[in-house]
Amino acid sequence: MKAVVKLGGALFKRDPDVNELRAMGKTLAGFVGEGNQLVAVAGGGQNARVYIDAARKLGADESTCDLLGIGVTRANADLLRLALGGVAFAKIPTLLSELNQYTSAGRAVVLGGLQPGQSTNAVAALSAEITRADFLVNATDVSGVYTADPKKDPKAKLLRSVSVEKLLSWALAGNVYAGKYELLDPLALKIMQRARIPTRFVSLEDPSNITSALRGREIGTLVSYS
Amino acid sequence: MKAVVKLGGALFKRDPDVNELRAMGKTLAGFVGEGNQLVAVAGGGQNARVYIDAARKLGADESTCDLLGIGVTRANADLLRLALGGVAFAKIPTLLSELNQYTSAGRAVVLGGLQPGQSTNAVAALSAEITRADFLVNATDVSGVYTADPKKDPKAKLLRSVSVEKLLSWALAGNVYAGKYELLDPLALKIMQRARIPTRFVSLEDPSNITSALRGREIGTLVSYS
Amino acid sequence: MKAVVKLGGALFKRDPDVNELRAMGKTLAGFVGEGNQLVAVAGGGQNARVYIDAARKLGADESTCDLLGIGVTRANADLLRLALGGVAFAKIPTLLSELNQYTSAGRAVVLGGLQPGQSTNAVAALSAEITRADFLVNATDVSGVYTADPKKDPKAKLLRSVSVEKLLSWALAGNVYAGKYELLDPLALKIMQRARIPTRFVSLEDPSNITSALRGREIGTLVSYS
Amino acid sequence: MKAVVKLGGALFKRDPDVNELRAMGKTLAGFVGEGNQLVAVAGGGQNARVYIDAARKLGADESTCDLLGIGVTRANADLLRLALGGVAFAKIPTLLSELNQYTSAGRAVVLGGLQPGQSTNAVAALSAEITRADFLVNATDVSGVYTADPKKDPKAKLLRSVSVEKLLSWALAGNVYAGKYELLDPLALKIMQRARIPTRFVSLEDPSNITSALRGREIGTLVSYS
Amino acid sequence: MKAVVKLGGALFKRDPDVNELRAMGKTLAGFVGEGNQLVAVAGGGQNARVYIDAARKLGADESTCDLLGIGVTRANADLLRLALGGVAFAKIPTLLSELNQYTSAGRAVVLGGLQPGQSTNAVAALSAEITRADFLVNATDVSGVYTADPKKDPKAKLLRSVSVEKLLSWALAGNVYAGKYELLDPLALKIMQRARIPTRFVSLEDPSNITSALRGREIGTLVSYS
Amino acid sequence: MKAVVKLGGALFKRDPDVNELRAMGKTLAGFVGEGNQLVAVAGGGQNARVYIDAARKLGADESTCDLLGIGVTRANADLLRLALGGVAFAKIPTLLSELNQYTSAGRAVVLGGLQPGQSTNAVAALSAEITRADFLVNATDVSGVYTADPKKDPKAKLLRSVSVEKLLSWALAGNVYAGKYELLDPLALKIMQRARIPTRFVSLEDPSNITSALRGREIGTLVSYS
Repeated sequence: MKAVVKLGGALFKRDPDVNELRAMGKTLAGFVGEGNQLVAVAGGGQNARVYIDAARKLGADESTCDLLGIGVTRANADLLRLALGGVAFAKIPTLLSELNQYTSAGRAVVLGGLQPGQSTNAVAALSAEITRADFLVNATDVSGVYTADPKKDPKAKLLRSVSVEKLLSWALAGNVYAGKYELLDPLALKIMQRARIPTRFVSLEDPSNITSALRGREIGTLVSYS
Repeated sequence: MKAVVKLGGALFKRDPDVNELRAMGKTLAGFVGEGNQLVAVAGGGQNARVYIDAARKLGADESTCDLLGIGVTRANADLLRLALGGVAFAKIPTLLSELNQYTSAGRAVVLGGLQPGQSTNAVAALSAEITRADFLVNATDVSGVYTADPKKDPKAKLLRSVSVEKLLSWALAGNVYAGKYELLDPLALKIMQRARIPTRFVSLEDPSNITSALRGREIGTLVSYS
Repeated sequence: MKAVVKLGGALFKRDPDVNELRAMGKTLAGFVGEGNQLVAVAGGGQNARVYIDAARKLGADESTCDLLGIGVTRANADLLRLALGGVAFAKIPTLLSELNQYTSAGRAVVLGGLQPGQSTNAVAALSAEITRADFLVNATDVSGVYTADPKKDPKAKLLRSVSVEKLLSWALAGNVYAGKYELLDPLALKIMQRARIPTRFVSLEDPSNITSALRGREIGTLVSYS
Repeated sequence: MKAVVKLGGALFKRDPDVNELRAMGKTLAGFVGEGNQLVAVAGGGQNARVYIDAARKLGADESTCDLLGIGVTRANADLLRLALGGVAFAKIPTLLSELNQYTSAGRAVVLGGLQPGQSTNAVAALSAEITRADFLVNATDVSGVYTADPKKDPKAKLLRSVSVEKLLSWALAGNVYAGKYELLDPLALKIMQRARIPTRFVSLEDPSNITSALRGREIGTLVSYS
Repeated sequence: MKAVVKLGGALFKRDPDVNELRAMGKTLAGFVGEGNQLVAVAGGGQNARVYIDAARKLGADESTCDLLGIGVTRANADLLRLALGGVAFAKIPTLLSELNQYTSAGRAVVLGGLQPGQSTNAVAALSAEITRADFLVNATDVSGVYTADPKKDPKAKLLRSVSVEKLLSWALAGNVYAGKYELLDPLALKIMQRARIPTRFVSLEDPSNITSALRGREIGTLVSYS
Repeated sequence: MKAVVKLGGALFKRDPDVNELRAMGKTLAGFVGEGNQLVAVAGGGQNARVYIDAARKLGADESTCDLLGIGVTRANADLLRLALGGVAFAKIPTLLSELNQYTSAGRAVVLGGLQPGQSTNAVAALSAEITRADFLVNATDVSGVYTADPKKDPKAKLLRSVSVEKLLSWALAGNVYAGKYELLDPLALKIMQRARIPTRFVSLEDPSNITSALRGREIGTLVSYS
């Protein structure tokens, strides 16, 4: 199958956690080794935020901040590429249009951000669209989409499924700042909506969540299309 | 001053109207000739739609359709560049990050689309942000933002001003298809919102509307920020 | 075998004819699927002419007109690539020197124009030379080379074979304008002559003409070398 | 004024003649220093021939031979750039489309070959066309166009002027081999013809011939257009 | 004058110190504003080390580690570029060969690392060589070259001047690891030696040390050439 | 196995010796044909020296001289690529970071120099490091490392083995000039040292020396690591 996996910034700690990266790489490499095609998109995390904050204080516009953050996502993508080992393609693509040149069955291509104004969530959605992926898994530091913020509200309940329209209406309530994109920015959701990409949100704490989701297990939150 | 002008697809007819382009070029070149810096962003128009429709029927995903449309916007940008004459920079930028290398007072830089998933409206907003433009004029085939579709409803009234939040809520009701981006797609509005770019929507039928708006005349619809 | 096919602008209608493109794609993909290597070169057609005419009226030099036309041939190449489906390489090459990196048995690489001053006929000849193609088929809207213009003169007779020297002497009588290159421009013929590439001119109305010619059937006009 | 000068391979000896290059650089830099814009195109000469011959013996096709020769013309362009000193732009352009970004009054841009199938004479003609040059001087090891080969026939007479049509008919009698392009290949003449570029052929033995021709002196052979 | 300044990794803290960067930017911008040409080279610092360490633990070879470190130096260069404000060129060069295209009097060009196997000290030396800089200042977290490690040995004395041969013999005692290049790696010293670039080592704690050194004040340690 | 072979400038004669190149190509292609991966790095030789000398006399700095020399090594790489025939990859890489994209078992990738300040010996060492080569063979016009210059001193004895530290101390006695890099420049040795690459110096007079060394025969001089 053809899969796209977005690995949230939470995987890329201030001091990169090599054991965590190695475990993630091993699990994903196993999935690829079965003959699957994988595109993995690395988020920015704390290191991106630190550079973006400094740039903003130095007077940078948000597009320039985005470019700095993209640089960090590419460094993160390199670490993930190393953790994946031999199944990973040697180059980090920097243009969406080159992606289909590099993908193939039994191979993983890792990338970070691409352009200012696009979160890595949007990159993951576009990658799924242009590679005609069978499934997109968006892995973050929470187990999926909740009725409220699970870190603040103990009564928050995990939704088994949510419509893209509902996500869009939520996402649009927030603001877009470089390095502080919401769970899903409007662009990512719009792309998912137009391409009707089967998508699940899962937690990245346990790497097997991701491969379970790719193999059809009902875990985290499924996005539904009307 | 530093300005960004988005010229809607309506300027780029199926059979390019050389007189109309020449008039637009002359008016904008006059503005640039006064020592102003201009970034002009060309839309796709009917020729983009024709190629995108064919690609979609041939089974292309929307990202690939976007790439085809971007090709046409760059051809349109070339025509506009020619119409601008000597004040126009010789190259059509293809990455946002190279824009600031080419801009300067007394010079116009013309570009088309940049990346799949981004309308040329978003490109115009990002260009305004990264060049720290004083003003953005978005010129289309209608005189601004109306209470209803002025082509269908004779009672539609032109709004003198509208908040970015209102525009966002309207824009999000629609869907995102390559070549059929709404008046303003969510991404463009989000960028305008985060950068608080002073923006006016005007009609491109009369080129002087654009330069009037740049010179501070109250024409068309002004976007307000809370 | 290694083949190069030039598909004349007549295949790329003002409103792209999706059925015609699909039929062409299917036939050529069948040929590739047998383990052959194909380079297909797309011409410009009416859409290229429209942009070039506008540019020329706006005062563009012919090299700039060529560049605009090349943009349209690349959009055409993208449509053909889509019509070819899975056997087509994902990228449209833009430099002759990268062609040999992408070609392989069982794969088609599609390209358009490359550089000002070179027609797509010349690109096809150069592609045949650098890939050491076994055969070049040049498909246009006429059935081959005639003793006179078959659209004007009912007595015009199709030549079964013609020497490259004869073609050169004819081609050189005309003028070189962007978008109005003759059946064969001097450069294309010179390249064919120096590389002695086996070449046939056939009609593109029926896609099977092209594959028949590639399989050795005597159809259209064969170019002979002294 | 805007000028293009083609410097034939004869200027670039097997062992580069530094004094000759320095004299040429000084003369051309003087012309540029008066506020003129110059594009200088370097030919290949003996070093190009040596590499091309070896490549051909190793089984290379002519396009690959052209690419090797282009490499040598760029090394020659670098030497000429050094000889021009501070008025020369620091980069050797490799695409025709970037040329207009680098040219300006009081500056020289030096380049070599661009693409297989194009001689540096064609590059010079295309450069003159796209920069809208006022004059093109083609400097070789003979004083202009003769009625016969002046190196073999003592009765050969220098023509004061010759029509482009006549040159075309002569040029086409020969063959096109990489590194052995005739005085003027068909493509170069076709470009000169379509752009009607005022052109003179002069000897490069005395650098002042070139600047004299640029300043309007009747020296060498003038190309006439019907 | 033409200057090159290397800013050691100590300027680029784990959490970038915006005030320190702003002070450095202001001081250097003042120097540039007097009509001087500046190339500033940013080092990697702690953030580079963190990524390199993670990559090495994930099994990366040292060249790949170098590439990761180079990415961080470019992010640092972006921060410094922002701190320099309007006098800084908008692009971070990534190839030595493009540097001379961007430099000019009254402008600063900022860059980070270029290639694996080259420290940013070597980049600074190569930049000084290719721009023919009048002076190179290498600013680190110590006040210059000492007789011993001033952080460990209280009797360590600052040398007013030291020969390049002596530095070479010291530098070569150590090993080359990505992110742990010595004060000066052998390559940087070899380049300084071959180009005989006037060079001073100063402390970057006080930005005025750098401009003082550029203005000829005897501060830190001067490198002498035999 | 994965091998890197450096072919010294002596293989690339002033007038390229096609028979010698063909013999080398055939021998190396045989090795590749057994399923091995090869990276071959071409040196500059006499043609590089001629261009560098001219550039230096024209006032070029050493970095610019290096760039000219790199151009010649790439032309040499092209000849070697042709001599290798079908096992050779069609493109000469110009960045170290793209090397791993092109290498594979049963394929040879040929390159020349990469960057100013790096000899092709350093390029070979970096290539061995980043491709994790099992063995590096450095082939020059002498049979290995001697106790003295074998061309001058008849008592010079070939060393069977030498430590990298010893080589470093010798190499550093010399100076670094473009085109006159010592047997091994400091950078190449430092890279070998940090990556502990098994390396042999052999003569390139007999191509089978190289493949013998790759197959484990004790020939020439082995580099030892403490």
